[in-house]
Amino acid sequence: MSELYYLNGTVYEEEPKVSSQDRGYNFGDGIYEVAKGYDGKLFALDDHVERLFKSASYIDLRLPYSPDEFLKIINDFYDQSGNPSAVLYLQITRGAASRSHTYGRDLKPVIFMYSKPAEDRPIEYYQNGFKVITVHDGRWDMCQAKTVSLLYNILAKQKAKDAGCREAIFIRDNGEVTEGGSSNLFIVKDGILRTRPADNRILSGITRKYVIKLARENGIIFKDEIFHREDLMTADEVFITGTTTEVSPVVEIDGKAVADGKPGEITNKLIRSYHNLTRGL
Amino acid sequence: MSELYYLNGTVYEEEPKVSSQDRGYNFGDGIYEVAKGYDGKLFALDDHVERLFKSASYIDLRLPYSPDEFLKIINDFYDQSGNPSAVLYLQITRGAASRSHTYGRDLKPVIFMYSKPAEDRPIEYYQNGFKVITVHDGRWDMCQAKTVSLLYNILAKQKAKDAGCREAIFIRDNGEVTEGGSSNLFIVKDGILRTRPADNRILSGITRKYVIKLARENGIIFKDEIFHREDLMTADEVFITGTTTEVSPVVEIDGKAVADGKPGEITNKLIRSYHNLTRGL
Repeated sequence: MSELYYLNGTVYEEEPKVSSQDRGYNFGDGIYEVAKGYDGKLFALDDHVERLFKSASYIDLRLPYSPDEFLKIINDFYDQSGNPSAVLYLQITRGAASRSHTYGRDLKPVIFMYSKPAEDRPIEYYQNGFKVITVHDGRWDMCQAKTVSLLYNILAKQKAKDAGCREAIFIRDNGEVTEGGSSNLFIVKDGILRTRPADNRILSGITRKYVIKLARENGIIFKDEIFHREDLMTADEVFITGTTTEVSPVVEIDGKAVADGKPGEITNKLIRSYHNLTRGL
Repeated sequence: MSELYYLNGTVYEEEPKVSSQDRGYNFGDGIYEVAKGYDGKLFALDDHVERLFKSASYIDLRLPYSPDEFLKIINDFYDQSGNPSAVLYLQITRGAASRSHTYGRDLKPVIFMYSKPAEDRPIEYYQNGFKVITVHDGRWDMCQAKTVSLLYNILAKQKAKDAGCREAIFIRDNGEVTEGGSSNLFIVKDGILRTRPADNRILSGITRKYVIKLARENGIIFKDEIFHREDLMTADEVFITGTTTEVSPVVEIDGKAVADGKPGEITNKLIRSYHNLTRGL
């Protein structure tokens, strides 16, 4: 019931140290995943491992294990941590080497994990919803890769926090809404649920995938199509999704209430459905 | 005459380890500088420290020392390393903390340095020039900050290396040429020297600054204005600049020779002038 760490095959009770020549440290040269455990089991771990391999492919990183081997390594570590409900963080950097932008393809990747207990959020979290701000999206064009070069997202989320908000929603120069600083965004207008297609401007979230599946199972009309700032600002319902965020209602954007300022009907339905799915109900 | 390392006030002969919770490691949340020493003295260190403070400001990082204190800390360490001709790398990350995108402003930044011997390049390096490729510039819109979230640049430079080339030149969707993966770019056409103005699409290089100064002193007509792919591909001379790259002639771009495939007259003049400036001749 506490934190546990893993570095290249060894398990530690306190956070281990890493080389100051690790390319993750000098270049943000690595990828990561965050999975959540419910009742002793990591939810959708196969999806996370599948995405890990996609991210690795986008950045030309050769992973040292097969997907099945990763599933076993991660599950074994998670079991060892003894946290029934926890966050599992996995980071893989390209390896440690004398600093040079270019890399050798024989470098040994560094695999780092931790497991930390995660309490369920209080019910008010879902009943009240929360506030977001919009920020300019000037990120790179490979947002489909889940990498640790995260500085732009950090600054956006900090700006939100400084404004008393929970998330920053990225909007491109052309008005296109992309996603949140660490979440995907959905809107509902006239009963139609929409989220941006999974192109190179967003990370294709695992929770996003399951919410789309649940929406279809619930008979909710769904379109994955690009939408703009004005669609966001006039939406009937807005919510964000993420592994630890789950399905979270947004009730205020840039100081303006979303509809009547309360989580909407479709949002509430998806919160319940996702809750039941992850808890195996 | 060997490598020496520095971490938060302590000097090490072997590279020290850092926390796996360092935000540099998990988020690419840090800034850096590379300075070069000639004859026992770091060239233009005050410029590097000035830029360090600019980068810190762009990413809302509060540096723990004044510019003068940094100059003393860096020079003392460099002197201690005993390398008359060396590369000095300085990296400052936001600090170590339990992983969260947002940060506390009371975090203690982690200061890491190393000094490594750097031999002068053989004369052929400047006589022969080298090859580059062009790559799509889909980087973020804060290239003016010298941060360790460098993955996009890494992949570009690796692509160049895989093609047997030394540098990748970034070109935006609209055809604008920005800079190299770890250098600034200059072209000469009809006797006029040009480089992109220092906006948010390039890093404002220290070597770039001194080359512009030397060009003016040498009576070379200089314009800092945006130019495009066709200007690059039809240039009479092309060279790149950087702290360790110094002034390096480009003789081939995407397999096509620049003019007659030999370093040009203005390039050679600036190579000599920069050589003399850094060696105090």
